Amino acid sequence: MKCEPMPADFQFRLLATDGAARCGEIATPHGTIATPAFMPVGTQATVKGVLPEAVRATGADIILGNTYHLMLRPGPERIAALGGLHRFMQWPHPILTDSGGFQVMSLSGLRQVEERGVTFRSHLDGALFELTPERAVEIQLLLGSDIAMQLDECVKLPAPPAELERAMRLSLRWAERSKRAFASAPSGRALFGIVQGGDDPALRLTSAAALIAMDFQGYAIGGLAVGEAPEVMLKTIEVVAPALPADRPRYLMGVGTPTDLIEAVARGVDMFDCVMPTRNGRHGLAFTRRGPVALKNARHAEDPRPLDEESSCLAARDYSRAYLHHLVKAGEMLGAILLTLVNLSYYQELMAGARAAIASGRFVEFRRETMASWEAGDIPPR
Amino acid sequence: MKCEPMPADFQFRLLATDGAARCGEIATPHGTIATPAFMPVGTQATVKGVLPEAVRATGADIILGNTYHLMLRPGPERIAALGGLHRFMQWPHPILTDSGGFQVMSLSGLRQVEERGVTFRSHLDGALFELTPERAVEIQLLLGSDIAMQLDECVKLPAPPAELERAMRLSLRWAERSKRAFASAPSGRALFGIVQGGDDPALRLTSAAALIAMDFQGYAIGGLAVGEAPEVMLKTIEVVAPALPADRPRYLMGVGTPTDLIEAVARGVDMFDCVMPTRNGRHGLAFTRRGPVALKNARHAEDPRPLDEESSCLAARDYSRAYLHHLVKAGEMLGAILLTLVNLSYYQELMAGARAAIASGRFVEFRRETMASWEAGDIPPR
Repeated sequence: MKCEPMPADFQFRLLATDGAARCGEIATPHGTIATPAFMPVGTQATVKGVLPEAVRATGADIILGNTYHLMLRPGPERIAALGGLHRFMQWPHPILTDSGGFQVMSLSGLRQVEERGVTFRSHLDGALFELTPERAVEIQLLLGSDIAMQLDECVKLPAPPAELERAMRLSLRWAERSKRAFASAPSGRALFGIVQGGDDPALRLTSAAALIAMDFQGYAIGGLAVGEAPEVMLKTIEVVAPALPADRPRYLMGVGTPTDLIEAVARGVDMFDCVMPTRNGRHGLAFTRRGPVALKNARHAEDPRPLDEESSCLAARDYSRAYLHHLVKAGEMLGAILLTLVNLSYYQELMAGARAAIASGRFVEFRRETMASWEAGDIPPR
Repeated sequence: MKCEPMPADFQFRLLATDGAARCGEIATPHGTIATPAFMPVGTQATVKGVLPEAVRATGADIILGNTYHLMLRPGPERIAALGGLHRFMQWPHPILTDSGGFQVMSLSGLRQVEERGVTFRSHLDGALFELTPERAVEIQLLLGSDIAMQLDECVKLPAPPAELERAMRLSLRWAERSKRAFASAPSGRALFGIVQGGDDPALRLTSAAALIAMDFQGYAIGGLAVGEAPEVMLKTIEVVAPALPADRPRYLMGVGTPTDLIEAVARGVDMFDCVMPTRNGRHGLAFTRRGPVALKNARHAEDPRPLDEESSCLAARDYSRAYLHHLVKAGEMLGAILLTLVNLSYYQELMAGARAAIASGRFVEFRRETMASWEAGDIPPR
């Protein structure tokens, strides 16, 4: 997995494949990302509850910032005046920003999608905003992210085929406009296109082909983990991933559980983001190599053992289950903090394991052993 | 301020005096405490929002644990079975525990004070508890704190003299019972008596003399910061401190603002605890060498400057006021975390400054300069 220093410009290098699984490296102006990569979500210019150096210490190479939230508060112009998002939040490593489209659909009120863009009311104060493909790019350039995303329309599943096709075609037209707007971007930054088309393989392939013809620096699979069954998600990845160029990174947006990640890596996905490790950590659920562990459960109340005595994460290794249980029951911030660290570390450990396995041609075994360990479950109560 | 290694048993050594101000060292089984010392409050076995190593990094030698909260949840027997409070919360340094008396008065429902002790209902679930002097000591021995406090009755001011005297005399009888109960404590641990008597100098002196006759290892001044004017607090300290033996530490309970601390140090106090730095940090208020700064204020919204460019605390030095403002406005945990770190660091910096000044005989100048800096106020908006 060693390699020469890479240039500051955006560049993806495939280092190894193992079946459909891939490992590689993405160079960006703010550093290199080992793939498959999991990106912790830093919605409001912070990964909730964790200092940036602690996020880095979990092994994260890159985090995700949310255009929707940042455009409402504190505003992209203000962040730009303060030196950009990296400096604002003291995260000097790579950042990917989404386009805001997904959150407009899921969080805002009174939204109206038109050819020109989407108008919506802020979930904070009801103020009216407009997000066009051009404005979404402009915001992301103001934020200064290393990887920007095109504006797209994401449709909840299940949805009628005509609705899926309409949104997919609109997203393609927005992709073209996003790309034109991004032409003025400073050197080194990248824009990704987003494959849409819901659970319809033909629509997905049409979307992928059209985006590839536009030549993006990376391709995302959007519109998944929006209500469909897990099999539908995996089947869609199986359709889309092989249709994407091997020399560009592939990013599955908003996914997912540890199982989702491993299954998607097995199908050729390189990048992920999800609030699961952070949100679940705040609610007392730990992800571990023995599967999820609900710390609120009374069986931990007197248990002096750590969550995982072999973890490299101090929060998983040095604190007793009894203490974590106490913190969660007492509603203490430190419970949320420690479990967020546990989960972010575990997600990174999982990705590091996948990368090493792919590099040495034993991803099948890694996947089998990892899943067997989850299925064997947590250590029994004492 | 350098000194030889000290024994593991409790021992106080006065290193220097400057006027009535003192600096010294307290040796305990878990390490040495430089005095004057500020103890961050770790109510529910955690200093809210901060990892123990981060608390330590602010310069804290010792923290305070609350007997009332820990007796209700998770229970002292459970903490003892898990190896004691130090191990439970991963804080290997000194811990002082209060006796629970103050919180019983301020938090619990339906309390009844009798000669035997106090019965009360838990503020969590209404369960009935009894706290006697013997049980308060037993709980603190189970927790394993380095310094334990006698059970006392703390009266809100203003209060009629007869009521102050009744509570003071009851507290003295409880002090005797506490001391007897503490006779079985493992070697090295210390028990402090608590001077009561409200704002009545004669009662205070009676209380102090009686406690000194019982020979405690340290003496606390209780029943202050409970509604009285600041002058009353300082006058009471001026009465009590000189009546206490010079070779024992003096602890002013539950105090206070940075000004309170400096004024109390000037009057011979060695130890403090208070929720002000942590609670205010969670509510967006920073304590700095230029006085308190409310980060919610819109004047910080576009300010790229840190809270204090000369601070040794990264949270005060590396993050812009604009970012802290954003986090506080957005209700992000990281805002609470960073400002808690800022405040704990500033309180420790203040104590370190006082210690150095006393050691070099320039406490008067230190006090004047420190207060002048607070009064000059925060840097003006750009």
